[in-house]
Amino acid sequence: MDFSKQRLGQLIVVSGPSGTGKTTLARKVCDRGEAVFSVSCTTRAPRPGEVDGKDYFFLTEEDFLARVERGELFEYARVHGRLYGTLKSYVYENLQRGVDVIMDIDVQGAMQVRACEDDLVKRCLLEIFVMPPSLDELRNRLSGRATEDAAAFELRMQNAAAEMEHWRKYGYVLVSGTREDDARRFDAILEAGRMRTSLW
Amino acid sequence: MDFSKQRLGQLIVVSGPSGTGKTTLARKVCDRGEAVFSVSCTTRAPRPGEVDGKDYFFLTEEDFLARVERGELFEYARVHGRLYGTLKSYVYENLQRGVDVIMDIDVQGAMQVRACEDDLVKRCLLEIFVMPPSLDELRNRLSGRATEDAAAFELRMQNAAAEMEHWRKYGYVLVSGTREDDARRFDAILEAGRMRTSLW
Repeated sequence: MDFSKQRLGQLIVVSGPSGTGKTTLARKVCDRGEAVFSVSCTTRAPRPGEVDGKDYFFLTEEDFLARVERGELFEYARVHGRLYGTLKSYVYENLQRGVDVIMDIDVQGAMQVRACEDDLVKRCLLEIFVMPPSLDELRNRLSGRATEDAAAFELRMQNAAAEMEHWRKYGYVLVSGTREDDARRFDAILEAGRMRTSLW
Repeated sequence: MDFSKQRLGQLIVVSGPSGTGKTTLARKVCDRGEAVFSVSCTTRAPRPGEVDGKDYFFLTEEDFLARVERGELFEYARVHGRLYGTLKSYVYENLQRGVDVIMDIDVQGAMQVRACEDDLVKRCLLEIFVMPPSLDELRNRLSGRATEDAAAFELRMQNAAAEMEHWRKYGYVLVSGTREDDARRFDAILEAGRMRTSLW
């Protein structure tokens, strides 16, 4: 066995309610060049400045649905009438080049990725649920930033509580504490993950 | 889910040829109080200064074999006529109190632990193979310390090569580099391991 031989990248799925800082954690790793964010595909029109293949892969509804039919997507969902999803091709090319790919997705999307039977996914998958220390603490963190009305806020809290029920399905749970400690522990999960024998 | 509730400890199995520094890595973790070494049991007589329950659990041959019969041992082997092994009770009590236990054992012992069907072991097991960067490099590292003759040295190299064939059966492989880097990566595996959802 030659360990200098390229190992596979990791498919890092990060979920958790907003307010836990999960996106910030993921972004820091990408900013350091240690992983790339997964680029989603969508049927919505590009907004000014958005670049095809960087912000999104922009697809027609017909093309999107044909790809779903052919099993080319990991996961997808319709939101406000538009389709959003993740193309396997983008993810697999990176994994095969040894590049870690981060998917910042909700528990429904994660469930679809987890259900994928492809050998590459089974070998590379690393699932992290970022958990607020408690619902009360999440309430504190979210109330500071919210510019929404009370009803919308309560709905967000209910959604968070519902998401949090799914933590056990993930391989790892990171219970959020201080920002520094969270970053250190997130990095430890990724660094350890790169030494998994399944990646060779 | 209350995450302040005691999680289980990890059963950390460390294998790899001598000369990779695996025992030093494990000892540092124990010295910091983050894990305890598994205490083996044996039928050999205590040497001067050895304490029962600390250095070994000293058992009679009859008692040892009766315990094997009752399934109380994870793994055991006869070496130079004496029996050596690991009692489940010692390991399980620590895991249930949330204390990580390190077993520094060879690939045969690890295979026996891996074969254990107990739910607690399945949930807590963390297997690390510490790998020399190459056989040539291992030869360099071992030749410096050896006070043995050439034939004994070659036998040790052959055993190392045979052990190294088993790396894929472990969850993690740490390819040894510098001492500092090895320690950092070993700690990352342990720290990440403590966030595995299976421990709750």
